[in-house]
Amino acid sequence: MVVTLLTDFGLQDEYVGVMKGAILSIQPSAVIVDLCHQIPPGDVERAAWLLGWSWRYFPPDTVHVAVVDPGVGSDRKILCVSHRKQLFLAPDNGLLSRVLAGSRRLHAVWVKNPRFFLKPLSQTFHGRDIFAPVAARLCAGLDTSELGPRVRMIRLLPASRPDRRKGGYLGQILQFDRFGNAVTNLPWVANVQGRWGIQVGGRRIAEIRSSYSAVPEGTPLAVVGSRGLLEIAVNCGSAEKDLGLKIGDRVEVVQRRAA
Amino acid sequence: MVVTLLTDFGLQDEYVGVMKGAILSIQPSAVIVDLCHQIPPGDVERAAWLLGWSWRYFPPDTVHVAVVDPGVGSDRKILCVSHRKQLFLAPDNGLLSRVLAGSRRLHAVWVKNPRFFLKPLSQTFHGRDIFAPVAARLCAGLDTSELGPRVRMIRLLPASRPDRRKGGYLGQILQFDRFGNAVTNLPWVANVQGRWGIQVGGRRIAEIRSSYSAVPEGTPLAVVGSRGLLEIAVNCGSAEKDLGLKIGDRVEVVQRRAA
Amino acid sequence: MVVTLLTDFGLQDEYVGVMKGAILSIQPSAVIVDLCHQIPPGDVERAAWLLGWSWRYFPPDTVHVAVVDPGVGSDRKILCVSHRKQLFLAPDNGLLSRVLAGSRRLHAVWVKNPRFFLKPLSQTFHGRDIFAPVAARLCAGLDTSELGPRVRMIRLLPASRPDRRKGGYLGQILQFDRFGNAVTNLPWVANVQGRWGIQVGGRRIAEIRSSYSAVPEGTPLAVVGSRGLLEIAVNCGSAEKDLGLKIGDRVEVVQRRAA
Repeated sequence: MVVTLLTDFGLQDEYVGVMKGAILSIQPSAVIVDLCHQIPPGDVERAAWLLGWSWRYFPPDTVHVAVVDPGVGSDRKILCVSHRKQLFLAPDNGLLSRVLAGSRRLHAVWVKNPRFFLKPLSQTFHGRDIFAPVAARLCAGLDTSELGPRVRMIRLLPASRPDRRKGGYLGQILQFDRFGNAVTNLPWVANVQGRWGIQVGGRRIAEIRSSYSAVPEGTPLAVVGSRGLLEIAVNCGSAEKDLGLKIGDRVEVVQRRAA
Repeated sequence: MVVTLLTDFGLQDEYVGVMKGAILSIQPSAVIVDLCHQIPPGDVERAAWLLGWSWRYFPPDTVHVAVVDPGVGSDRKILCVSHRKQLFLAPDNGLLSRVLAGSRRLHAVWVKNPRFFLKPLSQTFHGRDIFAPVAARLCAGLDTSELGPRVRMIRLLPASRPDRRKGGYLGQILQFDRFGNAVTNLPWVANVQGRWGIQVGGRRIAEIRSSYSAVPEGTPLAVVGSRGLLEIAVNCGSAEKDLGLKIGDRVEVVQRRAA
Repeated sequence: MVVTLLTDFGLQDEYVGVMKGAILSIQPSAVIVDLCHQIPPGDVERAAWLLGWSWRYFPPDTVHVAVVDPGVGSDRKILCVSHRKQLFLAPDNGLLSRVLAGSRRLHAVWVKNPRFFLKPLSQTFHGRDIFAPVAARLCAGLDTSELGPRVRMIRLLPASRPDRRKGGYLGQILQFDRFGNAVTNLPWVANVQGRWGIQVGGRRIAEIRSSYSAVPEGTPLAVVGSRGLLEIAVNCGSAEKDLGLKIGDRVEVVQRRAA
C-alpha cells in the first residue's frame, strides 16, 4: 500500500525520515513515496496545486499525507478525506482544494481519536505524532470512521478559473517549476492552436506549440503542459527569469488579427 | 528490515544512489530510508544531533548507517554499536554521541573483517565499499561478532547540558531547522510555563507557549519542540534570520520578576 | 526488481513523485531508487557521467530510467538498451555514452509501441507518460522486443580520454562533486604514486595520496577517487572553490624531476 508525503519540511532536518520511521514502525510493508518536501514554509497554495496535479497518478487505496501546517498545535482540524478510492490526510487549511475541485460530495472525518496518535503528543510536530501513525493504520486497513466524527464543511482556497473575455480568455500564472516554466490556469482547448495568440507580461508569445523543442533555443513559446494547462516556457531557458514573470501575472489568450 | 542513511553526501551526486544499489545487491528486501543527506560536509556535530533525535522512532532491528566521515581512509575505526535493539554503523568520530548519551554499557565492535567489504576497496568511499555491504549483511541476520573485535572505548563529543544558575538556567542553541527554529539544549520542564521568561541574544522572549501559532505572526516565542527541548521560534518567520541568532548563542531561562 | 531514476527534474515539483506513482500503479512491487534528480536542466553530459559511474553497483535486472531530455516531444527516439544484464531507458541524446563506453555490441530498441504508454500522452512529460509505465512493464517481465524495432546506431558523446604526452599524461576535469572534489578523466595507474606529480590550474599538487586525510586540513592533494579516476581535492576544503577550478580545466600528470 502506497503512502505519499507532501510537506514543507525540506530535506535538511530529520523530520521526513522520522515520519517514515513512525510509519514503518506500525506498518512495515508500507511503500512510502516522497511527493515533495520543498514546499516553501507555509505555502499551502503551492502544496494544494502540487497535490491536485499528482494524486490521480497513484494506485487505488493510496494514502496521501500532506503536512503544510502553519497552524499546528492550534484548534485547526486534521482531516481524513476519501476521494476516488484514495485517502487524503491534511490540515483543514485549504490544502485539499485542488484535489476536491469539482467534486460534489465530501467524505471527510475529523482525525481526533487520540488512540491512534503517538504518545507523548507534541504540539509542534503532528506530522510525526498524528499524520504518520494514522496513515500507517489506514494502510493497515483501519476504517476512517474510527478516526473521528464526520465533517460537513472544510476550508477551500478560492477557485482559480480564467475569465471569458471579448475575443479571448484572461488567465494567470499559478506556479513555476524547476525549469522556470510558468503554469497557467488556462485549460488547453484543442482547437486553439494556430488561431490564437498569447500575451503575457506585455509580450506577445508567437505561437502555441506542442513541445518545448518546437522553437529555437532561447525562444519563448506557449505549450500544452503535462497538467492539461497552458504553460509559458522558453526552450532551454527559463520563462520565469528570461521573461521576468511572477505568480499571479495575467496571461491573455487573444484572437489573432487577420493579416 | 529497515536501513537508514545519514550522510553529508548531498543529493547532487550519485553517492547516495550507489550506496542503495550496493545494499540492494546483497539484501533485495531491505527497506531503505533517507534520514538526511544534507549535513554540511564534515559536520559530525550536526549529524550526531540528528541521529540522536531520530533513532527511537524506528522499529526494532533497524540498521542506522551514518557516514559523515572526514577521516575516511585514515586509521579511524568504523564501529558497529548495538543500542536498544537497534544497530548503528558509524565512523569512530563522535557521531554516535547523542544516541548513546546516558547509556551505561557499550556494545560495540570494530568493523574490520574485509570479507564483508566490496572489492576493490576504495580509500575515499567507504559508504559504498564498507558501510553499505555490511549494513546489508546485518539486515540479512549477520551477527555483529563476525565483523571484528569488541571495542571498549569510543570517541564522544562533549556533553551539552545547560547550567543551573541562580534564579534560572543557562543553555545554548544547538541547531537550526529549515524553518529557522533554534533548538536549544534546555530540556522542557513542565512547570516552567508562565513563571519563567527566556532571554536570547539580548532579547527577552515574552512567553513559553505550546505551539507556534499561539502568538501573532512575526512574533518571537519559546516553544516546547518535538525533541522535548526548548526552541526559540518566530511564528511564520525565522528565529535564525529575524532575531540574528547563531549556533552556540546563550539562552537563559530566568525567573520572572514580580510586577 | 529495482528501478533507478536519474533526471534533471529537481525535487521542488511533483514530477519525480508522479513518475513513482505511475510505476507503482503498474508494478506495485517495484523498488524505486533515486539515483539523482539534481542534474542541471538539460545537462546530458553530467547525467551520462553519473550513470556511467553508478550502474554497476546495482543488481542484475535493474531498470535504469534516465530522463534528461531537452528534446522531449521532438522526433528524438527513446531507447531501451540491454547491457550486462541490466536495462537502460533513455532518450537518444548521448545519455548512455558512459555506460556503453568500450562496449562492442549494441542491444537497443526504439521505444515506440504506444500500447505501453499512458493516455492521453503529453508531449512535455514523457518521464511520466512513457518512461515510467515502460519501466514498470519491464520490471514485470516484458520483453524488450515488444517495445519497438531494433536500433543499430545511437548518439554518443565524444569519448574523453587523456592524451599521452612526453614525460606524462594530459587529462581534464570532468565533474565536481558536492565536496568540490574535481574528478578527472585520468584513470589511476597503480605505480604512479611517488614518482609523478600533478599540475592543475598552474599549480603543482605535491602528491598523489590514498585518502583525503593523508594531508593536513586545507592542503590540496591528488587522490585515487572511488570511480577509479584521479581526483583533485583539498582536505576538508573544496578544490573547486579553493583552487578556482572549472570543468574542462587541464590536468597534467608529470614525471618528477630528480632533486
